[in-house]
Amino acid sequence: MDASEQMAQLGRRARAAARALAKAPGRMRTDALLRMADALEAHRGRIAEANARDLAAADEKGIKGAFRDRLKLTDSRLAGMVQGLREVAAMPDPVGELTGERVRPNGLRVAQMRIPLGVVGIIYEARPNVTADAAGLCLKSGNAVFLRGGSEAKHSNAAILEVLREAVVAAGLPADALMSLPSTDRAWIMEMLQAEEHLDVVIPRGGEALIRFVAENARMPVIKHYKGVCHVFVDRAADLEKALDIGFNAKVQRPGVCNAMETLLVHAAVAERFLPPMADRLIGAGVELRGCDRTRALVPAAKAATEDDWYEEYTDLILAVRVVDDLDAAIAHIETYGSDHTESIVSEDYSAVQRFLEEVSSSVVIANASTRFADGGQMGLGAEIGISTTRLHAYGPMGVVDLTTRKYVIRGAGQIRT
Amino acid sequence: MDASEQMAQLGRRARAAARALAKAPGRMRTDALLRMADALEAHRGRIAEANARDLAAADEKGIKGAFRDRLKLTDSRLAGMVQGLREVAAMPDPVGELTGERVRPNGLRVAQMRIPLGVVGIIYEARPNVTADAAGLCLKSGNAVFLRGGSEAKHSNAAILEVLREAVVAAGLPADALMSLPSTDRAWIMEMLQAEEHLDVVIPRGGEALIRFVAENARMPVIKHYKGVCHVFVDRAADLEKALDIGFNAKVQRPGVCNAMETLLVHAAVAERFLPPMADRLIGAGVELRGCDRTRALVPAAKAATEDDWYEEYTDLILAVRVVDDLDAAIAHIETYGSDHTESIVSEDYSAVQRFLEEVSSSVVIANASTRFADGGQMGLGAEIGISTTRLHAYGPMGVVDLTTRKYVIRGAGQIRT
Repeated sequence: MDASEQMAQLGRRARAAARALAKAPGRMRTDALLRMADALEAHRGRIAEANARDLAAADEKGIKGAFRDRLKLTDSRLAGMVQGLREVAAMPDPVGELTGERVRPNGLRVAQMRIPLGVVGIIYEARPNVTADAAGLCLKSGNAVFLRGGSEAKHSNAAILEVLREAVVAAGLPADALMSLPSTDRAWIMEMLQAEEHLDVVIPRGGEALIRFVAENARMPVIKHYKGVCHVFVDRAADLEKALDIGFNAKVQRPGVCNAMETLLVHAAVAERFLPPMADRLIGAGVELRGCDRTRALVPAAKAATEDDWYEEYTDLILAVRVVDDLDAAIAHIETYGSDHTESIVSEDYSAVQRFLEEVSSSVVIANASTRFADGGQMGLGAEIGISTTRLHAYGPMGVVDLTTRKYVIRGAGQIRT
Repeated sequence: MDASEQMAQLGRRARAAARALAKAPGRMRTDALLRMADALEAHRGRIAEANARDLAAADEKGIKGAFRDRLKLTDSRLAGMVQGLREVAAMPDPVGELTGERVRPNGLRVAQMRIPLGVVGIIYEARPNVTADAAGLCLKSGNAVFLRGGSEAKHSNAAILEVLREAVVAAGLPADALMSLPSTDRAWIMEMLQAEEHLDVVIPRGGEALIRFVAENARMPVIKHYKGVCHVFVDRAADLEKALDIGFNAKVQRPGVCNAMETLLVHAAVAERFLPPMADRLIGAGVELRGCDRTRALVPAAKAATEDDWYEEYTDLILAVRVVDDLDAAIAHIETYGSDHTESIVSEDYSAVQRFLEEVSSSVVIANASTRFADGGQMGLGAEIGISTTRLHAYGPMGVVDLTTRKYVIRGAGQIRT
């Protein structure tokens, strides 16, 4: 049997499971999630052992630093996986709700019903905790899922998946709700991306190279974001105390994530008052500044920014800084260099705030708060399956509801069309 | 300048226009649509002349029948285009609405605002009226659009587009809101499909070959449906009078369209009473029947159906007929052979109807009415930009709201993340 026939078989199994899930009542899916959480706790030892094998292999290959760190399933990470499953279990059931019923002149009642997407593919890199997080979100929303984790975490992922599948079966649902690929070989990603009939959507989570590979090769829809070049604009009417706190928080609180600020835009009218103290605080926290000429006139410690800096996602303690003439120039900068992720304005001017929120078309636009709030958990969506900066289907952080769609339901009394 | 650089230039012009449209108040977009309608009326002669050139070229190539018919802009089709634009103009503005605001424990207010998708690509075949219809729907929803019509209609499309662009400019909006490609050469479709940065979505409208070509080559999301294999299931508890009317209407009223019935499923308990009179009415209207063995035992005039018949979209006066043991068998048939388009159950049994509406996951599920109601206009969405049988973003007939997305809007009072 060749790989594409094998993929088709796996796809049919996942489809059958998806159909069973879609018909199962919400309490069965919730029960499965609670059992999955319990099972992870009960089989901590088995999972730790598998993780140790992955870590040993990583050490042999000389893998170090942040990558090795992401691979490691500490007790607190395992507890986080368990806690995450219980939180998702406790969320309201996103499936089945009927909304927007209207009566047509001929008496037909037209409404929409929320249903699962079907079969979801998740392609991720070294973090084995994604296996449990993604499984929970997909199952809660009634979807079957193909989980394709990185080869470095293959033993950990296989152990977690085995434990989770046992729990799903114990809950009376099909094990095939949670699928993996026959190997972590990259060729299998390709098989999966070609299996348009069998997967309804693919969500890549990882570095830009992985995401571009998926976007270029997938036949089915892909929900993705390439990068987060997030801006904070300090308006002429900003409360400068708030601006200092927001600017500092957005850059320094966790610089390695996609909702951290990468470029600070400052209205020329307040640059002289705002930039020197802002720069002092940032430099004091170890931030390297790269500024435009007007910035450098006020902050001599800043290096000269190049055109490339405005496009850059540093995910590090580096910040590009630009003085702009007005709100229009700030919006134009964001339109030119932004990544449609998250932008924040700091201003007490009603019209300036309103224009920024209406005209900036990024997936999350914020007034007077840190860009770090662009996060499913912080925004009240519950756990997050990913972030979308493409506008189809979902735009911004994606929660469990974004793993569903809506079909039309029409009730008649014998109507025919004339 | 090579084609891909030329495409990028066009894409940047469209993006600039899309930004201007997104910022323009709804009344300007509505005004543009009304002016477009007036302009089509005023320039009827110019358009008719261009259409005559396309028809002459088609005649020279020996193009005949339905294809030539679709190419022809009769007075009534032109009036339909004008009327369509005025109806879309009168619809509520889908852009700008803020919904679902919730207050987080830290006081942040999180809501969603409806915004245009950006730049939409429409790829269609011989019908020149699509040029005006699609332009109107995209402009109403604040999107710029690339219109790529078939080469057979190139003079008609160019004339219509020129007239429409003049009207858009007269309304104070950028002409580049309505774009075309430099030529109708197929290579330009390919350029467009690779221009991921410049188009947010592509919607192909036409035959299955065109749609598959687009799905396989597009880098950006594609909203599509391949075919409509629509089912009517006559349950054991059906009101057989209603079932006869619905079955006849679903097949015969307009057999060439995607929401016509292609397969009739009949519960074994009523097959003997229902099938002979149903067959008489259908055969009387010239319908060829292809049945399973149990069907043929009751309707000797029916030919034997093959496995392929269950998958077939005839778009013609041909109908596949199958007797099934129960509701489960009907649902299983639809899951195996259906195309996720539209299915209808005829039944007076509350539980059977409810199960069918909940469990069948096609984009439109109907109780006790003809499948022919699966249509944006009939369902109250207004004019239709297309139908989606893939579950991402939109599922079922797509109206003007489906050409928008929602960004998150967060209002704070200086919050930072800790």
